[in-house]
Amino acid sequence: MSDPRPIGVFDSGLGGLTVLKALSEALPGESFLYVGDVARLPYGNKSPETIRRYGEQVLDFLVARGCKALVIACNTASTVFLDETQHRGLPLHNVVGPGARAAVAACPQGTIGVIATATTVQGHAYQKTIRALSPGREVLEVACPLFVPLAEEGMGDDEVTRILARRYLAPLSGVAALVLGCTHYPLLRPSIADVMGGGTRLVEAGPLLAEELRQSIPPAPAGAKRSLHVCTTDVTVAFERLAGRIMAPEIVPPIERVVL
Amino acid sequence: MSDPRPIGVFDSGLGGLTVLKALSEALPGESFLYVGDVARLPYGNKSPETIRRYGEQVLDFLVARGCKALVIACNTASTVFLDETQHRGLPLHNVVGPGARAAVAACPQGTIGVIATATTVQGHAYQKTIRALSPGREVLEVACPLFVPLAEEGMGDDEVTRILARRYLAPLSGVAALVLGCTHYPLLRPSIADVMGGGTRLVEAGPLLAEELRQSIPPAPAGAKRSLHVCTTDVTVAFERLAGRIMAPEIVPPIERVVL
Repeated sequence: MSDPRPIGVFDSGLGGLTVLKALSEALPGESFLYVGDVARLPYGNKSPETIRRYGEQVLDFLVARGCKALVIACNTASTVFLDETQHRGLPLHNVVGPGARAAVAACPQGTIGVIATATTVQGHAYQKTIRALSPGREVLEVACPLFVPLAEEGMGDDEVTRILARRYLAPLSGVAALVLGCTHYPLLRPSIADVMGGGTRLVEAGPLLAEELRQSIPPAPAGAKRSLHVCTTDVTVAFERLAGRIMAPEIVPPIERVVL
Repeated sequence: MSDPRPIGVFDSGLGGLTVLKALSEALPGESFLYVGDVARLPYGNKSPETIRRYGEQVLDFLVARGCKALVIACNTASTVFLDETQHRGLPLHNVVGPGARAAVAACPQGTIGVIATATTVQGHAYQKTIRALSPGREVLEVACPLFVPLAEEGMGDDEVTRILARRYLAPLSGVAALVLGCTHYPLLRPSIADVMGGGTRLVEAGPLLAEELRQSIPPAPAGAKRSLHVCTTDVTVAFERLAGRIMAPEIVPPIERVVL
């Protein structure tokens, strides 16, 4: 059985485009509908109650637009919807599960580090999920509150980013694997990799998330032309500028503005 | 004629507490009702359309709560409501006018610098307002997009803030006056003053805004006990931590959460 409907992808802003890129490359036949809640980003220091309210609005929008499955690409929102596998009858996926599985696979023993937003760290979703897979594992979670604005400013390879990376990452020195627990952080990968050095594997959720979708969702019909559509809740200069750096230029325009 | 109702003060987040502090000190008999739209901050890189939609919701809330006058403490929101002197029949004040008048008063000739958010700079509200007061005046407006997150993180006196201040402020070297055109920036004053040096007067809207209110609003009854009440659209750790540094501790709690 095939299903031509798109997979809905939800992020607080443009960071989720790193997940959309990974999914669209791993599942080249599938169509995607992306929503970035740019008007209300960042999510990383909002309360769980507010994130749930905004998240439900975005998920409802993706349901109304006829998606066949829903992906929460935002780590902070993923932690709020962590134990929910359905939303209004559609399968709901988050990035914490695949990120945790990727870390355990990359590093069968030893300490796993996690960098994430303040709200993600406060909820300990990664620690709980990793320990469910690997009981007793040492997990160190560290908040990096300025990484999102630095990524939004396109400062992935900048003196300031390296100074803050050294400061934030100091407690994680020597970990076997480091989960990039925020969809913005791959945009700072050069600085993070520099500070951590070659002994630490940097882990993202994208590949195992794509595998999870491949195994659980009815595929698009063979040979059908796929579509990629991007919606945002606000039009900002930063989004348009950075979207073109993250995705191939042919994917990005047109960006549709929606009011939620 | 006196009027016991509070003055409503609106900001995107906690930066406006610097304005509330200035107003509450200059107008010690007046009551104030403050709303920080913490759930949806920062405003500084949203589109004018989105800022207007959110701003009207906050102003309507202050009207419904029975204020006698409305103050937009957020510079970015002030630029969107720049030419409006009333909202639903109540007097509406913004910080751009008093900030521009303070700059011209501090510096009868010479170049005036303005630092502000990306959206404020793109709208050139300060340049227009200063030139209406002082025709032909040279005004240099520079966006400092990372200053708000740095202020929210309490990094007013930090190596990273000084590096970014040197970078952002380089084009403003030697200006006679510098308008701190965002309510968060007074929280970074040590670093900004360091970089600019003693030859530049740092200007804020607070004192002339207080004077404007004193002259135009019926005062509170003599001898009445004043109240200060703070509402936010989300409860965040950063707000509670920094609010206590900006305001006297007795003012801050209780913070009422409202949904807009």
